[in-house]
Amino acid sequence: MRISGLSAATGVPVATVKYYLREGLLHPGERTGATQALYDESHVARLRLIRALLTVGGLTVAAVRDVLRSLEHDDMLEALATAQEGLSPKLADSVDLSAAQQAVGTLGWRVGMESTAMRQLAVALRAVSDAGLPLTTESLRHYADAAHRIAEREIGNMPTDGAEALTYAVVGTVLYEPVLLALRRLAHQDVSERVLGPT
Amino acid sequence: MRISGLSAATGVPVATVKYYLREGLLHPGERTGATQALYDESHVARLRLIRALLTVGGLTVAAVRDVLRSLEHDDMLEALATAQEGLSPKLADSVDLSAAQQAVGTLGWRVGMESTAMRQLAVALRAVSDAGLPLTTESLRHYADAAHRIAEREIGNMPTDGAEALTYAVVGTVLYEPVLLALRRLAHQDVSERVLGPT
Repeated sequence: MRISGLSAATGVPVATVKYYLREGLLHPGERTGATQALYDESHVARLRLIRALLTVGGLTVAAVRDVLRSLEHDDMLEALATAQEGLSPKLADSVDLSAAQQAVGTLGWRVGMESTAMRQLAVALRAVSDAGLPLTTESLRHYADAAHRIAEREIGNMPTDGAEALTYAVVGTVLYEPVLLALRRLAHQDVSERVLGPT
Repeated sequence: MRISGLSAATGVPVATVKYYLREGLLHPGERTGATQALYDESHVARLRLIRALLTVGGLTVAAVRDVLRSLEHDDMLEALATAQEGLSPKLADSVDLSAAQQAVGTLGWRVGMESTAMRQLAVALRAVSDAGLPLTTESLRHYADAAHRIAEREIGNMPTDGAEALTYAVVGTVLYEPVLLALRRLAHQDVSERVLGPT
């Protein structure tokens, strides 16, 4: 299909498609002339992925590019590491990790004690504390148990094919998050209704 | 304390404190002259809350103002409704809710079938599907079970004092999310390490 057809198939304006091509987010089509190229289903799929990462994932264009590049790595662990950086909010390097490390230490998890996720946890715990919200050790363990059950299921569901597994791991890290968060808010409605609402 | 002391106590630059005062995010201090005012611990607490909502919660200044105003409502349900809007990413009104409504319908939850959270779920499910990621009914139920257990615990922990309960509900909706997400990513590390790593 031409670029206009690609735009129609995905709902992404032609100017935006051109922008993604220039920025290297979208791979070039097959050239058929000085100013024309043909696009196929791989372009449709890639455009949907880009839009999902930008809108629902909330990534910047630069972060999307990092994530997409990581999908081209042959080495899966390398790809995951690259993706993890691209997927993470930019955090100050100077954040104090001790409270987060101590909390995770009591869980007995095998994790990078200075990993990006650990820094995310440190920032999150600090914000909860700064806002004056309670968070007992028991509640933290409760969140951790729920998170671990989710992770077990997610990794158990990983496709066995290498390339698919990588897409699942990298893209799923971002795109399953909003599903979980939306369900948490709906669950708040359900629990409130049962506890506080008319019977 | 003077504005310079407030800045020192919170790490927020004086110019930023003045901006929050102008925008109505921070309540005025006690006037002691034409250009001077005194601030107290309530200003320190409010500034920490504003920073947490902006940085970790990822809210805009306008959304923070909506959330803070909702804390002044006497009617708790009204306050929660106002806050829910402020806390939510701006979503297109035209999103198709049927897949999300059907999914939640099978759970038997009592929720607003056209609520903001339902729209969030619809957008999230659409993004997962657009990206070509798998999401079986069973996996969705697994996320839902985890989310429900979290919500039960969160609502069970709600303070009994009215004003504190409101702060907990409104601010906690945003600020516990990053804790859960960071723990999910750390759990991925732990599970991967156990499944794939050296024994």
